[in-house]
Amino acid sequence: MTAPFDVTPLLAPNTPAPAARYNGFPRFNFIGGHNDPKNVPVEALVEAATAVLRREGVTLATYGLESGPLGYRPLREFLSSKLKDHAAIDCSPDEILITSGSLQGLDLVNSLLLAPGDTVIVEQETYGGALTRLAKLGVKVIGVPLDAEGLRLDALEKTLADLKAKGITPKYIYTIPTVQNPTGAIMGVERRKALLALARQYGVLVFEDECYSDLVWDGDRPPSIYSMAGGEGVIFVGSFSKSIAPALRVGYIVAKWDILSRILGLKQDAGSGALEQMVLAEFCNRHFRNHVPKLNKALAAKLQVLREALAEQFGTAAEFGNPPGGIYLWIKLPDVVDTVKLAQAAAAAGVSLNPGPEWSTDKAYAKSRLRLCFANPEPETIRQGVATLAEVCRREFGVPLRSANIDRA
Amino acid sequence: MTAPFDVTPLLAPNTPAPAARYNGFPRFNFIGGHNDPKNVPVEALVEAATAVLRREGVTLATYGLESGPLGYRPLREFLSSKLKDHAAIDCSPDEILITSGSLQGLDLVNSLLLAPGDTVIVEQETYGGALTRLAKLGVKVIGVPLDAEGLRLDALEKTLADLKAKGITPKYIYTIPTVQNPTGAIMGVERRKALLALARQYGVLVFEDECYSDLVWDGDRPPSIYSMAGGEGVIFVGSFSKSIAPALRVGYIVAKWDILSRILGLKQDAGSGALEQMVLAEFCNRHFRNHVPKLNKALAAKLQVLREALAEQFGTAAEFGNPPGGIYLWIKLPDVVDTVKLAQAAAAAGVSLNPGPEWSTDKAYAKSRLRLCFANPEPETIRQGVATLAEVCRREFGVPLRSANIDRA
Repeated sequence: MTAPFDVTPLLAPNTPAPAARYNGFPRFNFIGGHNDPKNVPVEALVEAATAVLRREGVTLATYGLESGPLGYRPLREFLSSKLKDHAAIDCSPDEILITSGSLQGLDLVNSLLLAPGDTVIVEQETYGGALTRLAKLGVKVIGVPLDAEGLRLDALEKTLADLKAKGITPKYIYTIPTVQNPTGAIMGVERRKALLALARQYGVLVFEDECYSDLVWDGDRPPSIYSMAGGEGVIFVGSFSKSIAPALRVGYIVAKWDILSRILGLKQDAGSGALEQMVLAEFCNRHFRNHVPKLNKALAAKLQVLREALAEQFGTAAEFGNPPGGIYLWIKLPDVVDTVKLAQAAAAAGVSLNPGPEWSTDKAYAKSRLRLCFANPEPETIRQGVATLAEVCRREFGVPLRSANIDRA
Repeated sequence: MTAPFDVTPLLAPNTPAPAARYNGFPRFNFIGGHNDPKNVPVEALVEAATAVLRREGVTLATYGLESGPLGYRPLREFLSSKLKDHAAIDCSPDEILITSGSLQGLDLVNSLLLAPGDTVIVEQETYGGALTRLAKLGVKVIGVPLDAEGLRLDALEKTLADLKAKGITPKYIYTIPTVQNPTGAIMGVERRKALLALARQYGVLVFEDECYSDLVWDGDRPPSIYSMAGGEGVIFVGSFSKSIAPALRVGYIVAKWDILSRILGLKQDAGSGALEQMVLAEFCNRHFRNHVPKLNKALAAKLQVLREALAEQFGTAAEFGNPPGGIYLWIKLPDVVDTVKLAQAAAAAGVSLNPGPEWSTDKAYAKSRLRLCFANPEPETIRQGVATLAEVCRREFGVPLRSANIDRA
């Protein structure tokens, strides 16, 4: 009975390529949304797990604990309070759905709204995982260029008008207005209001992704678009991945009940992981407000280490800003550099990076750009990784012309 | 900006109905796969959480911990050992993918194989969630009748031959051979071998769901079909929901790498919840082998409480077996009873049940049948719930003719 069985004739059409075997993290890990190991609040998580399990552990015997399918109620209550303080959102715990990471939030919103051939608007540079999901769904994705404050409204208005002239209503405008991924931009209040007005004028939903909004160095951020709309016509997603720990797969969707109830009808997973929700709720109620500034302080310091290392190793060949928060730096290298090829060569040298074209709808614009995540490596590892990247880049593309004369011993 | 926004023009076609608001569990909770609250190993989970977080908590800063996308390696190592002892499966930890509950396993396998119009074979009475998923995918589902040992092979062979005559290769045969849901049947060794031979003869995958296989009262069970095939042409899913706690959303897929690598390529969720995996691994390595027999003892006792209550309240009007394991009893009421209507009337009296037609491809056959889960309610609650159900049933359908003359004060 052990003759090989060839599954390929049975596969659904267009299944993705098989995954490669895992070989561990690279030495210089600048990809993904990994975070700072020194700021995982281990002892506080132990205390939280102990307290919540002793108090309510027996409820693990039931799907949904005793909170129903929206997720663990104390976590939704924490979020209701936190979102009010932080994002000016006035929502009840029953307008919050806990998801298995904000990625499940993206999937559920897409599942609610999108059919093949539909059109959506995104920021021209945006989260790569959102782009791959949309491509897989057969959806037409229109990228609108960004400036230092995020989505350019002149370009958005032109896009909406052009689509309307063709009889097309895009399903949503996907925006990351507070610490944009990858640029780190924070959209100001007036632009948020104008974006919302445009969306309403054209009958388009705003899909507001606030995964990074806790990570603002000075803690100061504009109200969410959701709050400005009183929740009407806006779907909001957030996450604990970036502010506590990415391996905890807990995100959330905020929406008015007419939308949330439909999303909930699509969430057929028998609930998101209960232990993670319970421990997070217990931890956040005690420590969230103290934890986040501490994490931000560490991240802000790492950002400066990365910026200094880039300046040292690449000189003027690397252009980048000074983002007010987040875990990413978006970098422009000379036009001669193809960052997809750079990523391959760098991987061989132990440096992982996200090439720009994966994070943009405009592959030509993004060709010489890349994203580095500075949250995970220690400062010295950041310096060594950037030095290695500069060596690889010079070898492959001839830039930077000179490397820093520093002793790497 | 707070004028209401009507989302309905933007919805994708065929989105399901909005979910109802949650109103708490019913007083007599006989649905779903809820488990015994007294057997949630709370203190051992506290110990496990404390130990694993102190030892490895910092790894929460990275997606996938340091184990890669297949899931927390110590949990896969535990499973590799457990499956060998328990199901005779010889697989490496790299042939196991941890999923967010076995439901994600179902979704991933369906996603790998199924396109609208495809055909699959299932057991005529089977897990309702599998049926609703297949219906949503636009897949043709053929149910093969069961007997006391599970899937009837004469009927399976006829189905396969009929399909072949029409030029149709079904994508898989979905079977729950060890404690079938809902009947509780355990398929014997010879029938497993014959099923596998038939599947190979017709070039069909076997999709083996072992969610309940830990819950065999005497611990004695045949080798898995997967083991008999050396893994070739079989995809195996399992879960910790039934043997530890359903609110922990941790399941797994076992498959050869050529299949598993393709499934992994479809799993775009940035990993399943890490804390649940870490705590489960730590707990299971210390306590799994002692925990399961203790749970089984409690469940076996509750089953007998339910059987006695049914006999007392329904007399000969309720027909049922004495399953060798699991958490469900599958019951036949007189033909006059429509269990979909019974479920509605019973809900109003605080009794929840799963009507047969939701768990069967043959709605007529299942019309007077129902599934009761006996794991969650305490014995006295089981007795009261069955008495209430008998009252509702007599009022609505005139059966049972007489109720037991017991004092319910």
